Amino acid sequence: MPKASPGPRDERGVLSARILRAAQEAFADAGYAGTTMRAVARAADVDAALVYHYFGSKEALLDAATAPPQRWLDSVATTWTMPVPQLGEALVRLMLSAWSDAEIGPVLRAILQTAAHEAATREKLRLVVERSLMGVSQLGTDERDRMVRSGLISSQIMGLAMMRYVWGIEPVASMDEDELVAAVAPNLQRYIEEDLG
Amino acid sequence: MPKASPGPRDERGVLSARILRAAQEAFADAGYAGTTMRAVARAADVDAALVYHYFGSKEALLDAATAPPQRWLDSVATTWTMPVPQLGEALVRLMLSAWSDAEIGPVLRAILQTAAHEAATREKLRLVVERSLMGVSQLGTDERDRMVRSGLISSQIMGLAMMRYVWGIEPVASMDEDELVAAVAPNLQRYIEEDLG
Repeated sequence: MPKASPGPRDERGVLSARILRAAQEAFADAGYAGTTMRAVARAADVDAALVYHYFGSKEALLDAATAPPQRWLDSVATTWTMPVPQLGEALVRLMLSAWSDAEIGPVLRAILQTAAHEAATREKLRLVVERSLMGVSQLGTDERDRMVRSGLISSQIMGLAMMRYVWGIEPVASMDEDELVAAVAPNLQRYIEEDLG
Repeated sequence: MPKASPGPRDERGVLSARILRAAQEAFADAGYAGTTMRAVARAADVDAALVYHYFGSKEALLDAATAPPQRWLDSVATTWTMPVPQLGEALVRLMLSAWSDAEIGPVLRAILQTAAHEAATREKLRLVVERSLMGVSQLGTDERDRMVRSGLISSQIMGLAMMRYVWGIEPVASMDEDELVAAVAPNLQRYIEEDLG
């Protein structure tokens, strides 16, 4: 099968999406250090030159591969418009649908799997935690209280995502969504609105 | 400085501990794929031949580097002898002391950072979740209920550990231990003994 090369504008979108998907998988599987542009090109079935042509450098490729999709940022924003008593459940459901989403899931996985070592991704993770949970002026008594609450909410949601989607540890990995919501939502609700001191 | 080589019995313990420490750091930082025996040897300031001599293969080195220290397994067991109403707090304190421990912390970090890709480490993580939290016959109504509870407890504890120690996201990363215990223990307590349905 002939390798793909730079084509007309339409093809460019298709190829760069294919490269990004391969990059997300490679970064999540092998980490930033363990990933080469050549390996990404091979997985995407394109020439390595094309990966450089589209993305410039491995750093820029990581940046593109871990950019939170707008569609996900939008659903985060929508979730936070829910009435406070429903936020716990809404946040669990948001996590479940995001990680199951064919476009959003691989980005989140790549972010969580590279954040430990790449300052740029860690900064993205920090912003996701802060921006997605902090828009909520209803929460907390002051700025620090809001940051603490959003950090604790994130700790539960991300721990659950690691267990279920990254490590695949049973029975969490295959629990029914409604069972998971019933079990976890009240704990998030406590972080959202109860006295933590 | 001359490189270390296989020495008398005493020295062997010192050198293999130094290699293990370097290996834990390398596996946690670069993942299994991104780690070479040569890089571990360099970080431990020994000959690569010595790493092979002591550990045989990269696979065996990972296995040794991610072996939960007996001292930690003992404190887990002790924690689970606490009265049920104190378990939530005891589990948060156990996590905090384990991750701050110079011997235990690096092992836990190496386990969490390689579990996504290495089946052998993932199996260890699964056993840690299962064995450390499942010894507890007090919890749950049946085997599956106990597994669900231990999985949820782990999701919160590990998410907190990732935020605080692996990703270093503020304010969770530098929150006072007592503040963290007050905030998180009641949520664990709910997973331990309340109705989750």
